[in-house]
Parts: sequence; C-alpha cells; structure tokens
Amino acid sequence: MGLRGGASGMRQHAADIRLSTGGEIEVRDLTADVAKAVAASGVRTGQALVFTMSSTSAITVTEFEPGLAEEDIPQALERLFPKGLDYGHERRWRDGNGHSHVRAAFLKPDLTVPVREGKLHLGTWQQIVFVELDNKPRQRTVAVHVWGE
Amino acid sequence: MGLRGGASGMRQHAADIRLSTGGEIEVRDLTADVAKAVAASGVRTGQALVFTMSSTSAITVTEFEPGLAEEDIPQALERLFPKGLDYGHERRWRDGNGHSHVRAAFLKPDLTVPVREGKLHLGTWQQIVFVELDNKPRQRTVAVHVWGE
Amino acid sequence: MGLRGGASGMRQHAADIRLSTGGEIEVRDLTADVAKAVAASGVRTGQALVFTMSSTSAITVTEFEPGLAEEDIPQALERLFPKGLDYGHERRWRDGNGHSHVRAAFLKPDLTVPVREGKLHLGTWQQIVFVELDNKPRQRTVAVHVWGE
Repeated sequence: MGLRGGASGMRQHAADIRLSTGGEIEVRDLTADVAKAVAASGVRTGQALVFTMSSTSAITVTEFEPGLAEEDIPQALERLFPKGLDYGHERRWRDGNGHSHVRAAFLKPDLTVPVREGKLHLGTWQQIVFVELDNKPRQRTVAVHVWGE
Repeated sequence: MGLRGGASGMRQHAADIRLSTGGEIEVRDLTADVAKAVAASGVRTGQALVFTMSSTSAITVTEFEPGLAEEDIPQALERLFPKGLDYGHERRWRDGNGHSHVRAAFLKPDLTVPVREGKLHLGTWQQIVFVELDNKPRQRTVAVHVWGE
Repeated sequence: MGLRGGASGMRQHAADIRLSTGGEIEVRDLTADVAKAVAASGVRTGQALVFTMSSTSAITVTEFEPGLAEEDIPQALERLFPKGLDYGHERRWRDGNGHSHVRAAFLKPDLTVPVREGKLHLGTWQQIVFVELDNKPRQRTVAVHVWGE
C-alpha cells in the first residue's frame, strides 16, 4: 500500500493545549484536542507531534478507561518509582517531587502520530493521553505540531 | 557536519506492515519491512515514523538476537508489570490483558528513525522491533510514514 | 493559538554529536549541542529529532541536575533492571551488558522536540539528555535531524 506526494502543499500548524491538573497521578485524554489541531491544520497526510512542556509530566497512548487511567497506570508508576524512596533531587531541592521527575524521564514528553486522510491515524482503542506526575496541581501547556500536505 | 536542502523535492510515503502474532510476548524484527518502505519512498534525507495501531503492542529498538528478544525483554516486562496482579482494567472488561495495556503505555507505540543517503540511519546493532504484548495471537497493522527529499 | 505556513521554505539539516562516555550510567546534557544544530539549520518553525546510534544508550528529557542525573535516574535503572540478573544475552555473547540492552530498549533511542521562533521549544526545566547504559566507556554518535521552514 502506498500513498505518495510531491512538495506541492507542505504546511505546518502549531497549537497549544492548556490544562489545569489536580496533581499526581492524573491521566487526561488529549485525543479530541489534538484532533482539533489536525483539523485546523488542513493537513491530509503527515504527522502530529505532541510534546508536554514540563519535566514532571509525560505523553503516551493507552485505552482511556478508568481501570487503566485511574488504577493500573498510577499503581505501576508507584510500584516502579515509589514516592517514599530517598531521592537525590529531594535532598537538594525539597520540592517533594523527585519521584515525579524520574517517572517523567522514563515515560518521556513526546509522541508522534501519523495523519492520514486528514485524521489522526490511531487504532480503535488508542487514545493520546497526558500524564500529570507532579505532586501538586499544575497549569500545563502541551505543544502540538501538525505538518504535512 | 551539515547537510542541507531546500524544499525542492519534499515527498512522503505511507505504508502498512501486517503481522500475525502468536501472543505474549513476541518481539519481531521490522527493520527489513521499514527499509523497504524507505526504498519505495525515494527519500534520500528525512525520517521514518513507525507506529503500531494498537494499545497492546509497542515499537522500540534493540539488538535482535534470541537472548534479548526471547528471554531478557520478556522477563523484564513480566518482572515490572506482572500478569498476576489485580488490574482495574481486568475487573471491568475481563479481557485478561490489563498487564498488556500497562506495558504498552510504558513502551509507547511510536518510533522515529532518521533517513540518510536513502537508508535508515541505524547503528550496527540496532534493529527496529515490534513487541506483541497482548495475551492472545493478533492480526496487527504497523503504519510507516517516510518523508523527506 | 495557531501559526501556519506554506511550503515556501521547507529545509532540513543533519548534524552529528560525538561523545566520549565513561560507561554506566552517565547522563549527559545535549541541549546546547542540539540547539547549535537548530541555529545552524536556519529553521524557524519545525522539529528536531535526536537519535542515538546505539542499542546500549538512550535519549530522554529531564531536569539536568546532579540529584536526578547522578543518583535518581541511575538508581531507578539499577532497581528496575538489575545488573546481576541472569541475562540470556550475557549467556550467549559474554559482553557483560545484557542489562544495558534491556534498559536501552525501554528508554528508547529517539526524541522529537518542536522548534518555534528558531529555538528548541522546551519547558524551563527540560533538558535533552543522552544516557550511557553500556558497561564500559564508549565513543558515541548522536544523530540530529532538524527540519522545517
């Protein structure tokens, strides 16, 4: 299967998603917001980059339902990177969020999704999610960059 | 070191890789399939995005050899995200694959590789791999998006 | 918020960052090197892909300070993927770096950052880091691919 295009109409579109979060661990569905940026871009074939502008949050993909979003993903994060460990970051900065930074470094801030036929090319059960990892409520900005033709 | 180009010949090429998998945990080498899409694209300098269209599989890079593919990566996944835990996803949906979803959310579905001189720009021991994380055999589609000039 | 452009001036720029590392686990700040590639590219709006050319290192984002870089991230890697386990890779190849490969497969080699107004579009506390995971000092190449207009 192939779909090919010349450079006739390459374009790009930058958008910001703003979020007020409730602190750790909050998994938020961004799919509709990213889809809106794709629609606004006029791009039919290309990509959408989703990038969270902070070192204590992350972007990934999951089936967005309460079992995973409110129980399983938070519990895995606490199991792998427990809040109560002795963190060097905490000893130096006293923000209480050493675990948040380590979790974010493992999950990473970026995700790139293909765009086809003017839409995010996702599987049926795939939603793009923002994961708040900080230990307090935050105002967040997620940068979206859509490009293609 | 620099290589620069104008917009003379920007092009893009979309392809699908289809896989029949045997269920958890199967690590499959996709490098040849992605390389084929790069060759078909005619792109000399650019990027290749590899994106699995499901929330219970992932894409990453490893040295593809049986020690890592059949033992070490599967064992790490089971050690970090054990199958036998009480998953909220399982209590709600009874698919038996709560652990599969959590593993996929941590490994993520996307990977972007540079293209140089018409080829995937990978290190000697780097292969692009698909990781089946679901608890049963599945038919999978991996979207490849090559672009550049 | 939207910023849109036609295809008038799409361009790309490839650069290599060379590193001599001291072996596991070394977290190195690449932000200035990647920023230099962005400046050299002349790109105002676009993206920068950062890709490490090896299967025993990774790229991610963190606040680069000694607590996280020298203590917390290394300790999390050792806790989740202990060096002393029985690795299939080790039984076959005797390189002593089975754990390095598994760590790299989980952290992944790629990162994509938006470029806006000619600069890496990062949050205040976000630095792009290279993570050496191999068990000995290495000469490393990190490929940077900047594109946009």
